[in-house]
Amino acid sequence: MEGISLEELQLAARNHGMPLEALRYPITPVGLHYLLIHYDVPDVDAPQWSLTVRGERELSLGLAELKERPRAELTVTMECAGNGRARLDPRPVSQPWLLEAVGTARWAGTPLRPLLDEAGVGEGAVEVLFTGLDRGIEGGIEQRYQRSLLLEDAFREEVLLAYEMNGGPLPPQHGFPVRLLVPGWYGMTSVKWLAEIDLLEEPFEGYQQSQGYRLRQTEDEEGTPVQRIVPRSLFVTAGEQVVEGRAWSGLAPISSVEVSTDGGESWAPAELDFQEERWAWRGWRFRWHAEPGSYVLCSRARDEAGNEQPVEVPWNLGGYSNNAVQTVSVTVIG
Amino acid sequence: MEGISLEELQLAARNHGMPLEALRYPITPVGLHYLLIHYDVPDVDAPQWSLTVRGERELSLGLAELKERPRAELTVTMECAGNGRARLDPRPVSQPWLLEAVGTARWAGTPLRPLLDEAGVGEGAVEVLFTGLDRGIEGGIEQRYQRSLLLEDAFREEVLLAYEMNGGPLPPQHGFPVRLLVPGWYGMTSVKWLAEIDLLEEPFEGYQQSQGYRLRQTEDEEGTPVQRIVPRSLFVTAGEQVVEGRAWSGLAPISSVEVSTDGGESWAPAELDFQEERWAWRGWRFRWHAEPGSYVLCSRARDEAGNEQPVEVPWNLGGYSNNAVQTVSVTVIG
Repeated sequence: MEGISLEELQLAARNHGMPLEALRYPITPVGLHYLLIHYDVPDVDAPQWSLTVRGERELSLGLAELKERPRAELTVTMECAGNGRARLDPRPVSQPWLLEAVGTARWAGTPLRPLLDEAGVGEGAVEVLFTGLDRGIEGGIEQRYQRSLLLEDAFREEVLLAYEMNGGPLPPQHGFPVRLLVPGWYGMTSVKWLAEIDLLEEPFEGYQQSQGYRLRQTEDEEGTPVQRIVPRSLFVTAGEQVVEGRAWSGLAPISSVEVSTDGGESWAPAELDFQEERWAWRGWRFRWHAEPGSYVLCSRARDEAGNEQPVEVPWNLGGYSNNAVQTVSVTVIG
Repeated sequence: MEGISLEELQLAARNHGMPLEALRYPITPVGLHYLLIHYDVPDVDAPQWSLTVRGERELSLGLAELKERPRAELTVTMECAGNGRARLDPRPVSQPWLLEAVGTARWAGTPLRPLLDEAGVGEGAVEVLFTGLDRGIEGGIEQRYQRSLLLEDAFREEVLLAYEMNGGPLPPQHGFPVRLLVPGWYGMTSVKWLAEIDLLEEPFEGYQQSQGYRLRQTEDEEGTPVQRIVPRSLFVTAGEQVVEGRAWSGLAPISSVEVSTDGGESWAPAELDFQEERWAWRGWRFRWHAEPGSYVLCSRARDEAGNEQPVEVPWNLGGYSNNAVQTVSVTVIG
């Protein structure tokens, strides 16, 4: 992989992925869900906040008014369209995701469609535009974050205006107080810090729609829009592992076995099986909660006479009696 | 590690260790127990075979006569004194064991002591010499395989003349029809293909006692004898492993996940969790019997619309929508 640029590093330091071991949670805990934030997180004063909806009429709703509307709850897996970007070659310069830009949350909110109907969807309407409170410069253009949906996509029953995540208010970084939620679409569609909704009679041509989030090979190309999340599966092998083995000594019965996962820096006792016969080896097991990373596993036995396996043994001519501790390097994938 | 010499390779091809995954068996199955054979396996005709015991009197016993004597059974862990030799530096030229020269068997036989008493242990006796039927040249000396024990060691109640291993007759390579069994001592002590037992009034000075199996730094040194097995523990992580993950698609519900352990050459279906909600990811698990070796784990998801994760995706300018299968290299230790 080519070296990471300063621009990419700055993005990677602001945004974060879901560590893959968090695949264990059906609902990703807040703080582990991936985050991709284009501009600064806006500072929103909830009592002052209102959502403007402009159709044939203009509506304005505060947070309390939105919460009084019909409530829906959905568990939704959200993924960044750029997940896997850092594995492409050449690597497009943007947030350098490997595989971890995903998360699943329990969202609560109110369905979008009835609100659009109340505002009045005119005969000429073709798209719905969503505008967030976040603003910045991208592609040389100062802009508010904006994305649109075709009417038919905006009308789907699973599209919500969400004000709760995992049973609490939206955290600031996930769009407090209200965000759009478009299940099945890449995350950029679900506009955060939602401020305005407009019914459009022409397709939206803003930066995030016509330049960002399009599949194309060159800058000149129009390309095709990135929309639905294509299939992916991910796995982990971290977690509860049992390291099992056997120990023996001809000098005296085995009294303990210890295991190290750091190459002998620190040791923890293994459980010993019952020793049924004096001259047979003794089984042992060590329950290891394997966190992702690199480890050097070792085991050492001690007998009742106090003889212990050494880390190093002195050399001898015949190569006899080398009972140095076994050492194995292990990589745990998260 | 220095390159293996032809002599070492020839030894390694004849002798074999216990693959470490066989630590799972409390009693090592025949054929997996380690073997160290100095010379050729002798061709023994059991009806013709007899054991000669020379004390104050000379006894001669056939196999049937030995089996009529009191029977004892013991489970015994046996290890080669050279286990670990190949990890010493410089590496002594002999059978290049890493860690696997060990095994545990259920042995049956008759205790040695009463037989020595019947032959008559004279007042001048200091050692008991055991002579096998195997013969060859070692250290430039043509010899039969011979080892001795001090009287006090030979008299221990756990020392047997063994004629059964794991419930059957001794296999040829383990000393058929009868071998000495000295629990707690390195394997060279338990003389195979036993033919003669002699009570000695002088310490035995033969090759395997005075030159072989001594801890020394130079050829000139007398050294100290290798006798009892010093403590050792070994472990495995091979075995039943569960690879778990999650899969999702915004296009249609996930219909299958497959797992490959060979980098995508072959695929096997994973079990899918119940899909509770359409927009949430779907859990899956794959039970993998991990044999020692190197693997490349991959998973690929397919949805009900037939969309499948590709092994490679075409490059695009924005780095969007890269759902190429995840690939992780894993080493399983035996």
